[in-house]
Amino acid sequence: MTTTEAPGAYLDHAATTPMSPAALEAFVAEAGRTGNASSLHSAGRAARRVVEESRESAAAALGARPSEVIFTGGGTEADNLAIKGIFWGRRSQDPRRRRVLVSAVEHHAVLDPAFWLAGHAGADITLLPVDGEGRLDLDALTDELAAHGDEIALVSVMWANNEVGTLQPVREVARIAHRHGVPVHTDAVQAVGQVEVDFAASGVDALTVTGHKLGGPVGVGALLARRDLPLEAVSHGGGQERGVRSGTLDVAAIRSFAVALREAVDARGERATALADLRDVLVAGVRRVVPDAVLRGPAPDATTPSGDMARLPANAHFTFPGAEGDSLLYLLDSAGVQASTGSACQAGVPQPSHVLLAMGVEETDARGALRFSLGASSTRDDVDRLLEALPGVAERARAAGLVSTRPGGVA
Amino acid sequence: MTTTEAPGAYLDHAATTPMSPAALEAFVAEAGRTGNASSLHSAGRAARRVVEESRESAAAALGARPSEVIFTGGGTEADNLAIKGIFWGRRSQDPRRRRVLVSAVEHHAVLDPAFWLAGHAGADITLLPVDGEGRLDLDALTDELAAHGDEIALVSVMWANNEVGTLQPVREVARIAHRHGVPVHTDAVQAVGQVEVDFAASGVDALTVTGHKLGGPVGVGALLARRDLPLEAVSHGGGQERGVRSGTLDVAAIRSFAVALREAVDARGERATALADLRDVLVAGVRRVVPDAVLRGPAPDATTPSGDMARLPANAHFTFPGAEGDSLLYLLDSAGVQASTGSACQAGVPQPSHVLLAMGVEETDARGALRFSLGASSTRDDVDRLLEALPGVAERARAAGLVSTRPGGVA
Repeated sequence: MTTTEAPGAYLDHAATTPMSPAALEAFVAEAGRTGNASSLHSAGRAARRVVEESRESAAAALGARPSEVIFTGGGTEADNLAIKGIFWGRRSQDPRRRRVLVSAVEHHAVLDPAFWLAGHAGADITLLPVDGEGRLDLDALTDELAAHGDEIALVSVMWANNEVGTLQPVREVARIAHRHGVPVHTDAVQAVGQVEVDFAASGVDALTVTGHKLGGPVGVGALLARRDLPLEAVSHGGGQERGVRSGTLDVAAIRSFAVALREAVDARGERATALADLRDVLVAGVRRVVPDAVLRGPAPDATTPSGDMARLPANAHFTFPGAEGDSLLYLLDSAGVQASTGSACQAGVPQPSHVLLAMGVEETDARGALRFSLGASSTRDDVDRLLEALPGVAERARAAGLVSTRPGGVA
Repeated sequence: MTTTEAPGAYLDHAATTPMSPAALEAFVAEAGRTGNASSLHSAGRAARRVVEESRESAAAALGARPSEVIFTGGGTEADNLAIKGIFWGRRSQDPRRRRVLVSAVEHHAVLDPAFWLAGHAGADITLLPVDGEGRLDLDALTDELAAHGDEIALVSVMWANNEVGTLQPVREVARIAHRHGVPVHTDAVQAVGQVEVDFAASGVDALTVTGHKLGGPVGVGALLARRDLPLEAVSHGGGQERGVRSGTLDVAAIRSFAVALREAVDARGERATALADLRDVLVAGVRRVVPDAVLRGPAPDATTPSGDMARLPANAHFTFPGAEGDSLLYLLDSAGVQASTGSACQAGVPQPSHVLLAMGVEETDARGALRFSLGASSTRDDVDRLLEALPGVAERARAAGLVSTRPGGVA
């Protein structure tokens, strides 16, 4: 192996964040045992107990019932299961239900399954608009439901945006949609561990969470789904997980995920305050050293009409006029600071972010986007290192202008 | 945690086998690093290098090119991708292609996606018959291709059966299907590490392999797929893995899988000989202590017309007349011996195995099935412990008769 520890300041925790020591320890302990949780002998039953204890722990951490937890191979799989599974389930109850409403700022793990359904299963996708800060237009949702309520299979609105950190009015979405009997899914991958996420209190019918954004392993996550939600299987085989998610249960990853989830939720209050303080230092610092940088998404201290925080505490997102996001990213990387132009899942795609465009940001401005995201291991030193490098980096990126300087081979 | 090590003799390696120390070490080393392999900064590029080195290693171990390796979350996901992805890909090239030919003894991870396509996408499924030892009837395949060649989207025939251990004539299947331009998928989950599996030499177009059957972690596997194979995505999102398998790459699991795969393939020759020797002791012993037990599948020393081994070296499968498989399983478990009635993925399903029924075994006989499967850690002591317990267990199970004694709660 030639890999070495990534040096410098890691400001890309929204892409992936380090596994917590307790989560890694739990993984190793379980990986040292043998037993397929579907096997009926004692080793199998022991493995099954670990899964069920983890299910109880994950449910308790998220305000859900154990029977509502469907373990998956991660957030993308949970989103695919939600969008396709609810669409098929609802349409098989009533063939008129072919409309899917999703916010225009969803992650591709929600958008792409929806558009695949449009191409393969006769679905009709409506992108719900957002305001200039990325927050869902509830009037547009209300109007769509009033106009087409009987034809809508589901609504999917993320809990928090992965690029600009905007928190969505998920409770209101559920309340409005339920008036028309339409179920709501929310991708809460970025929210869990940063803001309070209570499945029952939120009123949503399905919720996606993943391990590697909160200190657990990659390759494991869950869809929380109410038992009365029509939900068809998307992967087929052994019939594990209520028959909707086949595949050998990944006992070690599930246990490790449950441990990380418990830790992240227990530490959330204290950690969120510390992250928000550090984020404030970062935002003020960026504005000081590059005065024309434009913060995207809600102001750090903004609150919603209901008094909730408007933005994730660990996210800061800027556009830098006249600079290419990729240039900024690579120049910062050379200076030992690791950030992102937006979603890691779209890295290497030479297009301005659909999130920024939906917010009304001009295409040329959108090309200069840079996301900084903090995590449990972030320090003031990380931020200082960014602020030290940023003026020179921004100057050089602007000198290079709005011409892609992307090197090949890393898409 | 209240879990304890499973005591006694573990004879269920076909359900899952212990992680090798090297594979666990590789997992821990990678899990200690941070970086999303889709991120463009140095931590992301380091993670990507680990994935690409693992891809090269996995490809070399299986006679494939690196660009033919699509990492998945395991065998079930790879089978779903193969069956649905090839079906959609081939049908979008020619709408007449709606037939799927699968052997009648496939794992449910192949059968269930196929039947789902029948219910949701207009597919027409043909179950290809097998002989009394579970081996595919090549004449039936030839006839189906002659009758409907232009309408066949794909053929899927497993490399080795997971219940009775029968090796299938995969090379011949590919040769026959290719005469009609029809691609072939094979589920080689049980074969890799026990028999030689060379993707290019086999002639198949797609091949499923998984980590946890060969000393790697659960939750990771691969579909090998020729680059010219029409293959549509089944999970949608970030567009990782040639755009056909979205989801954050599980770097630690991928690296660990590649290490285990390399080990299993390198050790195969020596290990297979030792396993076959132990299997022979087991088979002779079972026949000695329970003389009316019937070995299912090919005889241990049987070879195919082309001189190949006819049966997996690590598998032994019996039916015990007058006894219920579940009774045998639980009584053996009480005696410290862990076996399976068939596929762990179907454990708790109170139906005789579709594999045995397809082989022409009577339903009452099929209910008395027990599979013993060996692995790298198996010892003569494990087998001795089985042979010591079995006579009494068989007697008690017969006294209980063919009435299900299944306790609840472990399905």
